[in-house]
Amino acid sequence: MVDIATRVYNHNWKIDPIVRSLIDTDFYKLLMCQSIHRNRPDTQVTFSLINRTTRIPLARLIDEGELREQLDHVRSLSLSRGEGTWLRGNTFYGKRQMFSPAFMEWFEALKLPPYHLERVGDQYELTFEGNWPEVMLWEIPALAVLMELRSRAVLAAMGKFELQVLYARAMTRLWEKIERLRRIDGLKIADFGTRRRHSFLWQDWCVQAMIEGLGDAFIGTSNCRIALRRDIEAIGTNAHELPMVYAALADTDEDLRQAPYRVLEDWHEEHEGNLRIILPDTYGTAGFLQHAPDWLAGWTGIRIDSGDPVIGAETAIAWWKSRGEDPRNKLVIFSDGLDTEKIEELHTRFVGRVKVSFGWGTLLTNDFRGLVPNDALAPFSLVCKAISANGRPTVKLSDNPNKAMGPAAEIERYKRVFGVGEQVAQAVVV
Amino acid sequence: MVDIATRVYNHNWKIDPIVRSLIDTDFYKLLMCQSIHRNRPDTQVTFSLINRTTRIPLARLIDEGELREQLDHVRSLSLSRGEGTWLRGNTFYGKRQMFSPAFMEWFEALKLPPYHLERVGDQYELTFEGNWPEVMLWEIPALAVLMELRSRAVLAAMGKFELQVLYARAMTRLWEKIERLRRIDGLKIADFGTRRRHSFLWQDWCVQAMIEGLGDAFIGTSNCRIALRRDIEAIGTNAHELPMVYAALADTDEDLRQAPYRVLEDWHEEHEGNLRIILPDTYGTAGFLQHAPDWLAGWTGIRIDSGDPVIGAETAIAWWKSRGEDPRNKLVIFSDGLDTEKIEELHTRFVGRVKVSFGWGTLLTNDFRGLVPNDALAPFSLVCKAISANGRPTVKLSDNPNKAMGPAAEIERYKRVFGVGEQVAQAVVV
Repeated sequence: MVDIATRVYNHNWKIDPIVRSLIDTDFYKLLMCQSIHRNRPDTQVTFSLINRTTRIPLARLIDEGELREQLDHVRSLSLSRGEGTWLRGNTFYGKRQMFSPAFMEWFEALKLPPYHLERVGDQYELTFEGNWPEVMLWEIPALAVLMELRSRAVLAAMGKFELQVLYARAMTRLWEKIERLRRIDGLKIADFGTRRRHSFLWQDWCVQAMIEGLGDAFIGTSNCRIALRRDIEAIGTNAHELPMVYAALADTDEDLRQAPYRVLEDWHEEHEGNLRIILPDTYGTAGFLQHAPDWLAGWTGIRIDSGDPVIGAETAIAWWKSRGEDPRNKLVIFSDGLDTEKIEELHTRFVGRVKVSFGWGTLLTNDFRGLVPNDALAPFSLVCKAISANGRPTVKLSDNPNKAMGPAAEIERYKRVFGVGEQVAQAVVV
Repeated sequence: MVDIATRVYNHNWKIDPIVRSLIDTDFYKLLMCQSIHRNRPDTQVTFSLINRTTRIPLARLIDEGELREQLDHVRSLSLSRGEGTWLRGNTFYGKRQMFSPAFMEWFEALKLPPYHLERVGDQYELTFEGNWPEVMLWEIPALAVLMELRSRAVLAAMGKFELQVLYARAMTRLWEKIERLRRIDGLKIADFGTRRRHSFLWQDWCVQAMIEGLGDAFIGTSNCRIALRRDIEAIGTNAHELPMVYAALADTDEDLRQAPYRVLEDWHEEHEGNLRIILPDTYGTAGFLQHAPDWLAGWTGIRIDSGDPVIGAETAIAWWKSRGEDPRNKLVIFSDGLDTEKIEELHTRFVGRVKVSFGWGTLLTNDFRGLVPNDALAPFSLVCKAISANGRPTVKLSDNPNKAMGPAAEIERYKRVFGVGEQVAQAVVV
């Protein structure tokens, strides 16, 4: 029986909003936001969208008017009562009241600041400027909007039957991945795929498939709205933007050298347990660990987000040993360019030596590779990063020179200060 | 579980087409079309939309661009293989091959001719000109498009919850009517509500409710597409356009006087049984019957479509008796402005005296009276009629002067020729 009211309602939408909630974002953005809101609220930052896959002509695929409508819709959002209640009342990693009343009051009153959008050739220049705690919340919705508008542009040309088959194939593919993962004894894996998802509904479907297919091996999602909606754990800790902005604000080389540790000092004061995860690669993992203060070795674990993950994890294990820690009590989180095979391989290699977990991103929530002509739905590498702080450019090196960001002279300076030598270039998967 | 493919598909529609099939029309249009195609294929006619409820400012409610899109969509339609098969293969009133191969070949190749649309004040002037068999097929889709665009214009301002409640109320109302009708022993009733339906989906829902609620008392629908879709009988015989056009083509008063009978002569040759239904009111029921040839008294029944239905039926009964026919073998079909109460009343009065059946129209498929503010969804009286044939104006008198149509001088002439005296005016319900 057709539900006529729903049918009429659906066809009355002025737009079909992609991001419908301020918590349709990664949990770690909220954790970082709270930390920034407390420690660096007045820092002026600029975030910018960067399409690293320049062969995808976003401005030709996506109508500027539609893009503006979607971004304007994001600006119209504010935290709903239920979302506020969930953030205030939820237990994250066993801890109650993760978000302070002061932060929640600020967040509940927040609307996202203006954006600047301009078409430059076949790409869009999309930037956000203002106070760090506000601007940084644009990152995930901006990416999600662009990714999904690109999906829609491709889907718009397809018939009903083609669409049915497309999703049937994508579902089958994911289910086969899940069936392989189910065989991994002791697997711990989370959804980290919000930013580069095919669409919101698709991510939501993927999460539900993981819940059903993996049971306890699926430990949660980085997406707060889906965590709320599906009643599962929200997962995440911190990201490169913290050391990048702290570093840009450093006045001297010595300050710069200390910046990544200062980030974690601030973090240390606020968080414990599963939230004390080191992200060591912003300016090179090896140097970061070598010069790290001893208290950092007491943290719960490390997230490996660039470079060869085997080298990254081995480096971390060696470092823990050198600091008198037992790696078997430590957690290694792999989160870079994962797919089933790599997950199997890394798990096999490190199980028993450290605690292992996986943050599965783009190839969980956007593996439409090869499903339409010209591979027009294949995921691509779109990021939204802090490019300056208080007027100074930011720099990211990471363990993969292909992921480096910033002005060339600054990159050279950072490499010198952090003692980063020759790096092995790796293809950026997604 | 959300069906993502369907969801994506629905939101990709350029338009949401109202009429999606050439057989989303009344069955009698196809019967008449075949007769016209055989007997008067080259007659040039003009059909015109007439909004008898001028307080409804259609041109302010309905966007001209949307109206054109819908009408253009109707012009893009042609008979599908399945529809052709259904028309060729179905048994209508127990008769096989109701539609001749010659007619089916023509119909299968048909696309509807151009329309002429102009805004005049707050109303639209919508006309169709050309060969009678083609132009006449515009009547029902044109009405259905306008009725549904008007519904959509009102629904567009409503929230999801309001819509849910609206349809819940309309459904409840119809179901209560059906429960009352169920108590009428020996009831025979059909859906005649295509032309002034609230929407296609709503008509389809109403028909399904009638199937479930009335069982065998529900004898079918005038709508071919719904008859096909719900596997029930398609119902209908003929309408005023036949005598109106035949009359307009008459060269003398004597020809004019004979025109309504000539229509039925042509009809008589093609059809038998349930299709031999007299529609006597085009130029006054009393005179029509009085001067009717004897062979007409042998026909199956009469349809009462204007005037006081009790008087109409009593006139018919008296006429049958005067021609030596037993009225108990005759069928009276009531089809004007029906609702539950009138159906009960007419059934009670005539059951046992004649065979009675009902063609329930607007108040079956569009009873949204009083359900929204300003009664903005109440049905209104929109018709699409032949206004000229081979350059001569058509005239309709009917048994209700409020339903009369045509130039004043011609109306007077017709009244004289057909001996129509004083008529009792009746409010046109819908």
